Amino acid sequence: MEENPLKFDAAKKAEEITEGIKRSFQEKGFSKAILGLSGGVDSSVAAFLLVRALGKKNVEGLIMPYKEQETLHAEEVSDILDIKTERIDISPMVDAYFSNFPDADNLRRGNKMARERMSILFDRSHKTGALVVGTGNRTELELGYFTMYGDGACAVAPLASLYKTQVFELARHLEVPEDIVGKAPSAGLWEGQTDEGELGATYLEMDRILCYIDEGLSTEDITNKGLKESAVKMVRERKRKNRYKLEGPVFL
Amino acid sequence: MEENPLKFDAAKKAEEITEGIKRSFQEKGFSKAILGLSGGVDSSVAAFLLVRALGKKNVEGLIMPYKEQETLHAEEVSDILDIKTERIDISPMVDAYFSNFPDADNLRRGNKMARERMSILFDRSHKTGALVVGTGNRTELELGYFTMYGDGACAVAPLASLYKTQVFELARHLEVPEDIVGKAPSAGLWEGQTDEGELGATYLEMDRILCYIDEGLSTEDITNKGLKESAVKMVRERKRKNRYKLEGPVFL
Repeated sequence: MEENPLKFDAAKKAEEITEGIKRSFQEKGFSKAILGLSGGVDSSVAAFLLVRALGKKNVEGLIMPYKEQETLHAEEVSDILDIKTERIDISPMVDAYFSNFPDADNLRRGNKMARERMSILFDRSHKTGALVVGTGNRTELELGYFTMYGDGACAVAPLASLYKTQVFELARHLEVPEDIVGKAPSAGLWEGQTDEGELGATYLEMDRILCYIDEGLSTEDITNKGLKESAVKMVRERKRKNRYKLEGPVFL
Repeated sequence: MEENPLKFDAAKKAEEITEGIKRSFQEKGFSKAILGLSGGVDSSVAAFLLVRALGKKNVEGLIMPYKEQETLHAEEVSDILDIKTERIDISPMVDAYFSNFPDADNLRRGNKMARERMSILFDRSHKTGALVVGTGNRTELELGYFTMYGDGACAVAPLASLYKTQVFELARHLEVPEDIVGKAPSAGLWEGQTDEGELGATYLEMDRILCYIDEGLSTEDITNKGLKESAVKMVRERKRKNRYKLEGPVFL
């Protein structure tokens, strides 16, 4: 039987991240957190962990839909955790901008939305003196599948060490509702968009490939483990092309 | 006579930064730059240096006023350098947001504007495949006098090694028009706002203090050089309080 490079102890990891949140907030001198709740598995898991680490009184969620974007699952998380939640519709701001560029494609629109949400999170964070918590996972970070200065912008990123499939496992361990864990991950870039459809591989494939690349395996070694060559090449290309997204500005 | 810790060779520095821009663009694989033109001395000097380094065909300016903000000087820079310039009014986006929070203060409004401009710069940078260039100087960076993920967000920061008073000197060397170099620096946070009025010290004072702190001088040593104790304390406090703005996210 094939070894599983993604194997991890979800209970232990939940404990480690909880301690990491406590420690990083202490070091920064903050007790409160604010995060965007999309209803997806990442922000849901992040919210569950924040409540564990800081207590529900110290966690605030922002629900920031564009147009008719579904917010049912975000509200469900807010209800279960019993945290303060504010709702701000980003449509007026986003639409005001794209009235200048009515032909803008989905990628541009998605990036603008991500940056609008960042801007709102940082604005609202001042009210209570909260730190903005990011919900990016290791898969997204390594592939550069995020918006620079958008969803990538935060003070603390509690899921950064977890591959996406590990976030799912952690979600089940934390008893995040199955209607959230079970749905297809989507950045919500357009109606019906799924991450896996857009990227051209499943998260399980991408996560395995990322692990094997990390271990130094060649493309041939990886395809010999049953993974598609096209997927391995896509992952390598994304890693190479998007590395710059993790780098700060060059100060001359 | 008192030594001047800010003394530098403007011609040599202009050459070094020009070479630094060329090198960093080559390393990142880009030939084009985009930057926001406010008509202030920083963005004007940055534009002059970019044209030197990359050629005027490879530099684009964005003029992004809020309401009746003056854009005369930004247009002057665009005309002198003969670079392509686009104008986008940020009022509709900013006002759409603050219709939710009509009582928001000037600081919140200023931060929202800075992030809106960042968001637009990154959106427009995709059209031509340009790198976003920041205009922050060393004084602003050390004092944390900028908006995180706003004007602080960029790929290359060509003025990062220059104190504000050195930017003025470089501006005169580059023959930036005197109506730009001679006016009081303002972040444009409100009508009549000046940086020096808001910060409570002149740039010459702040720059000298920052230099002396860098050299390891005590507050007493610095006041013995004729600088006000209140200004030294303000600078130290800002440095301490805003250091986090230069740090990236903590990845747990």
